[in-house]
Amino acid sequence: MIAVVGADCSLKAKADIVRFIEGAGFRVQVSEHEHASLIGVIGSGAAAIADQLATLPGVKEVRPVAPPYPLVSHEHYPGTRRVKIDGISIGGEQLVVMAGPCAVESREQILEVARAVAAAGGTILRGGAFKPRSSPYSFQGLGRTGLEFLAEARDETGLLVVTEVVAPEDVTLVADYADILQIGARNMQNFRLLSAAGGQPCPVLLKRGMMATVEELLLAAEYIVSSGNPRVVLCERGIRTFETATRNTLDICAIPMLKERTHLPVILDPSHAAGRRELVPALARAAVAVGADGLIVEVHPDPDRAMSDGRQSLELDAFGAMMKDLDAVARAVGRRL
Amino acid sequence: MIAVVGADCSLKAKADIVRFIEGAGFRVQVSEHEHASLIGVIGSGAAAIADQLATLPGVKEVRPVAPPYPLVSHEHYPGTRRVKIDGISIGGEQLVVMAGPCAVESREQILEVARAVAAAGGTILRGGAFKPRSSPYSFQGLGRTGLEFLAEARDETGLLVVTEVVAPEDVTLVADYADILQIGARNMQNFRLLSAAGGQPCPVLLKRGMMATVEELLLAAEYIVSSGNPRVVLCERGIRTFETATRNTLDICAIPMLKERTHLPVILDPSHAAGRRELVPALARAAVAVGADGLIVEVHPDPDRAMSDGRQSLELDAFGAMMKDLDAVARAVGRRL
Amino acid sequence: MIAVVGADCSLKAKADIVRFIEGAGFRVQVSEHEHASLIGVIGSGAAAIADQLATLPGVKEVRPVAPPYPLVSHEHYPGTRRVKIDGISIGGEQLVVMAGPCAVESREQILEVARAVAAAGGTILRGGAFKPRSSPYSFQGLGRTGLEFLAEARDETGLLVVTEVVAPEDVTLVADYADILQIGARNMQNFRLLSAAGGQPCPVLLKRGMMATVEELLLAAEYIVSSGNPRVVLCERGIRTFETATRNTLDICAIPMLKERTHLPVILDPSHAAGRRELVPALARAAVAVGADGLIVEVHPDPDRAMSDGRQSLELDAFGAMMKDLDAVARAVGRRL
Amino acid sequence: MIAVVGADCSLKAKADIVRFIEGAGFRVQVSEHEHASLIGVIGSGAAAIADQLATLPGVKEVRPVAPPYPLVSHEHYPGTRRVKIDGISIGGEQLVVMAGPCAVESREQILEVARAVAAAGGTILRGGAFKPRSSPYSFQGLGRTGLEFLAEARDETGLLVVTEVVAPEDVTLVADYADILQIGARNMQNFRLLSAAGGQPCPVLLKRGMMATVEELLLAAEYIVSSGNPRVVLCERGIRTFETATRNTLDICAIPMLKERTHLPVILDPSHAAGRRELVPALARAAVAVGADGLIVEVHPDPDRAMSDGRQSLELDAFGAMMKDLDAVARAVGRRL
Repeated sequence: MIAVVGADCSLKAKADIVRFIEGAGFRVQVSEHEHASLIGVIGSGAAAIADQLATLPGVKEVRPVAPPYPLVSHEHYPGTRRVKIDGISIGGEQLVVMAGPCAVESREQILEVARAVAAAGGTILRGGAFKPRSSPYSFQGLGRTGLEFLAEARDETGLLVVTEVVAPEDVTLVADYADILQIGARNMQNFRLLSAAGGQPCPVLLKRGMMATVEELLLAAEYIVSSGNPRVVLCERGIRTFETATRNTLDICAIPMLKERTHLPVILDPSHAAGRRELVPALARAAVAVGADGLIVEVHPDPDRAMSDGRQSLELDAFGAMMKDLDAVARAVGRRL
Repeated sequence: MIAVVGADCSLKAKADIVRFIEGAGFRVQVSEHEHASLIGVIGSGAAAIADQLATLPGVKEVRPVAPPYPLVSHEHYPGTRRVKIDGISIGGEQLVVMAGPCAVESREQILEVARAVAAAGGTILRGGAFKPRSSPYSFQGLGRTGLEFLAEARDETGLLVVTEVVAPEDVTLVADYADILQIGARNMQNFRLLSAAGGQPCPVLLKRGMMATVEELLLAAEYIVSSGNPRVVLCERGIRTFETATRNTLDICAIPMLKERTHLPVILDPSHAAGRRELVPALARAAVAVGADGLIVEVHPDPDRAMSDGRQSLELDAFGAMMKDLDAVARAVGRRL
Repeated sequence: MIAVVGADCSLKAKADIVRFIEGAGFRVQVSEHEHASLIGVIGSGAAAIADQLATLPGVKEVRPVAPPYPLVSHEHYPGTRRVKIDGISIGGEQLVVMAGPCAVESREQILEVARAVAAAGGTILRGGAFKPRSSPYSFQGLGRTGLEFLAEARDETGLLVVTEVVAPEDVTLVADYADILQIGARNMQNFRLLSAAGGQPCPVLLKRGMMATVEELLLAAEYIVSSGNPRVVLCERGIRTFETATRNTLDICAIPMLKERTHLPVILDPSHAAGRRELVPALARAAVAVGADGLIVEVHPDPDRAMSDGRQSLELDAFGAMMKDLDAVARAVGRRL
Repeated sequence: MIAVVGADCSLKAKADIVRFIEGAGFRVQVSEHEHASLIGVIGSGAAAIADQLATLPGVKEVRPVAPPYPLVSHEHYPGTRRVKIDGISIGGEQLVVMAGPCAVESREQILEVARAVAAAGGTILRGGAFKPRSSPYSFQGLGRTGLEFLAEARDETGLLVVTEVVAPEDVTLVADYADILQIGARNMQNFRLLSAAGGQPCPVLLKRGMMATVEELLLAAEYIVSSGNPRVVLCERGIRTFETATRNTLDICAIPMLKERTHLPVILDPSHAAGRRELVPALARAAVAVGADGLIVEVHPDPDRAMSDGRQSLELDAFGAMMKDLDAVARAVGRRL
């Protein structure tokens, strides 16, 4: 439920409204706009206080929650609201490219990749220190050591760092090192993790689950935002279908569908969708053309010896070549790299 | 199985090879290239004559059938082989745009659409006269009358005509009016229809079944080509998945995958994939960026009153606007509209 | 649209109603029940005559078409209406078991299987003479010769014969030899074939397409019945999903869902669902327990040398053993083999 | 990797083997059988010590890890190994029926259901106190209070209690009240939660993710067992497919497939598969016939007013009726309720 408050409403009246809502046992999420403030009432059973809320001074309208993800919807903010991180802005004219290896494997590896990514015009370095793996016997990542290597690569290259967090109890640790917390496809409905990521200030990259609908992705983002963290970037990375010729089926139409429904920036991961590096540049071009705000791509200095996902990782040279090609497509649709 | 014959092989030797293969009970499909001729041996059990075939004068090599669709694969022809139809060429630098209503509804309707398609730069008019419909109680198309309206629209505008054929016994009738026969998604594995379309000279637009793999699409094309008709164009139009926010899930990665495996041109149908016209222009841009050789798009002068698929049909103005935007993307990837 | 006519309506009044409907350009499908006759009005635009129809003598009620498959729905007939074929009844207390090889390969093979099927208590022999195959280079069946072998097996064993028809132009030929025409999964939406099968009297076994919803299966059946042939048996055989450990995913819930919606008998094909013979007996038990009216099972005297589907075919002994086990399950749910 | 140790191996030799493995940086999982002990070597890179391990006194054989889930596979234990919990045994001749509401809503509700479940012959009470919900605004469960109500219901009725745990930090709390910890479909690949559940002694009911393959389910179970907790029960509950007529598509074939590959007991949840109570009894019969070791079913005293999943919850009377029917099917396949 959202209470719409006029721009001319006094601060005291607003405070009274918030106090009323909290007094009734609900949480409050306020967003300020030019001509109005929107006060989200969070918690089940909110409809019970709708009538009374509508009578409070300053309240112009009380809207039932429709769509079911009010805070991330265009009801809350029309257009795309940029997520700003340390001088970088995701969701604007300039596309953001995140690139790096699936897993941080060694200091040398991540430094080599970071230099190549920076040289090719990427702005954010990716690399997993905590890896969710289907088998308990697979390489699970370097943990804190991996985070330290990432931080060193950032210090040297000036790239920002995005890396995955897999459990609520790790959020603080990972946020100490990362500029963006990634929540992976398998954890898209790990609601406790979503809430933990929403309860701290580091921005979040939320990947779509491989069997999640666009609606469920938006609800998952709503968990984060309604917990207090509005800086969320969404990522389409392919869904699971009957077609086995690719690792996943890239649902490219998710990009314009998400743009219709949410103000959150949306990027695309061509590497996990395709599962084979040969297909990555073509999908990256499609992503830019369809309106994505950026890309996250796997690159590796020696893909055939990668500890995970080597098959889908671009070599450093190929990444550089791809970046050059993408700029032309970006300009054709009014964006730039 | 394919027999590779050198460019210096005499005509007589070639004739002997063909005679030998046919004498053993197999059919033959010959394709001529600059440095070699490829003689396809069609029929089960061909391996039994491999050794003997290899000893015939002129035969340089006998290759077992791998991949399972030899005639449409790059083994047969590297790169994309253009399909030429009456002055138009599909698969070259210039993209082809097919557009028109789901169904031919009246003479006025199809003429109005045809004029708009031609004015906007389209080259081929689509429109169904025979409609495969899930329910026996739905509009099934105007039949022969619809074909006549299409022919009239061609005569007036100079557009070529593509229209669907749904049964082997209609192939001759439809080919009398159409420049390209369309085989729809539901008939992709109607093998008798594939063979009938392969046994006549009109080019074929073959749409991927909504639950068919890329491999099965190529095998379906192989039915047509091995029946004698090499002019086949493939079309990705979305597959059926768990995601219900779109009518189908566009498998955009099918375009580069098909390009890896076949010399047949590949176009994309954003209308059936999306199921909603708002999403069509974005998908069309993605199609061009990813490397498709063209598009087939539903347009209608009054979509809300269309007898079928109105929800996914562009209005005439919107189609014109889309065409303008696409040209920039095409040029960014070295193509043009 | 359905006109409900009272049991006391005179024959002349009924004839007038039919004449009125046909005069308005629609087709008619009449079904007689104890307390009423239902007159189905078939054709698009039927709503236009609803008001006038309601005023005719004898018409008690005019119902709009809901559900969209009126003739096969419980609106038309509550419970399961038995399909009777030459002394056998499908849909009653006794379950029907159809068994045989994927393809008729030779006279000896089909006779051997037929004897084993009869000895084990099966009542219908299956075997393909026309095979729809993904590749044009695969074995396509023995054609008419295969039909002759099936007929000989019937004459010797007393089993009925079910065999697939793949094109409208073959319907008469196949119906000359078969007791039941099978329309396979790939042809479930070959609407011309459905209409052809509906325009002749031989009963039809209609298999669910691997990409078809339950709703679409019922609409496909409606094509057959509305073309004049009410003797249709449905078959669930697995759908295509992301799970590749089985050939298809058996949608066992389709059985009770179909029973809720249609009076047509429903059987189940565990062989194509599983794709491996080891899993067939367990699925067959589940089918009986869930309420299927019968089974269609692939058996082969020497599965490892079968020309198709050997991996999923039971050996003759295993089929006999399975039949014994099934009887106990059938009795537990008030049925018998 | 598994080291096979003969039954005649001395305790000291075994201790030396374990010490050697742990000294090399790996973890150890020992399982004792009549004629041998199996010592699982857990951790990546184990192959490096294979040769040296093979030379230790007592080691008869060192097997590479194949299948990838050695501890839950039949390599480790042939047949089904019963999971025993407080006098109840899951995986034996007697089927286990778990039943109860989706969520614990009040003390009265859970007590009323518990009495009905016990009276009808159920042995385990289900009910969620921590609910993973797609929307942050939906009812999230009563938390600890819900656990206390469940414990009271157990004390009164003698039923055991199974309830869901959604985060590693709750495992101890939930295990204090529950007899079985449930890990739900959305958390099947929450690897940190799996490890936490494996690091404590309370048995675990692991539900298959709606997007998970059978192989991935087994790998998830391997996480739990390799962390030290061998008492795991698997649960099939439907997967996500294109068919929307049911909430999920029950993959009934998963039961015999899992039985082929693992010694863990397997039960089935017909309620979440179907999504509608009318379909539940038929699916339950199928589950018993196909070889499941039990069921978990949603029942509610007043389904239409349930706070979640009411549509798929059986009324108490219907549950009792279903239990009576199931016994006949169970006996037909050599089991009993």
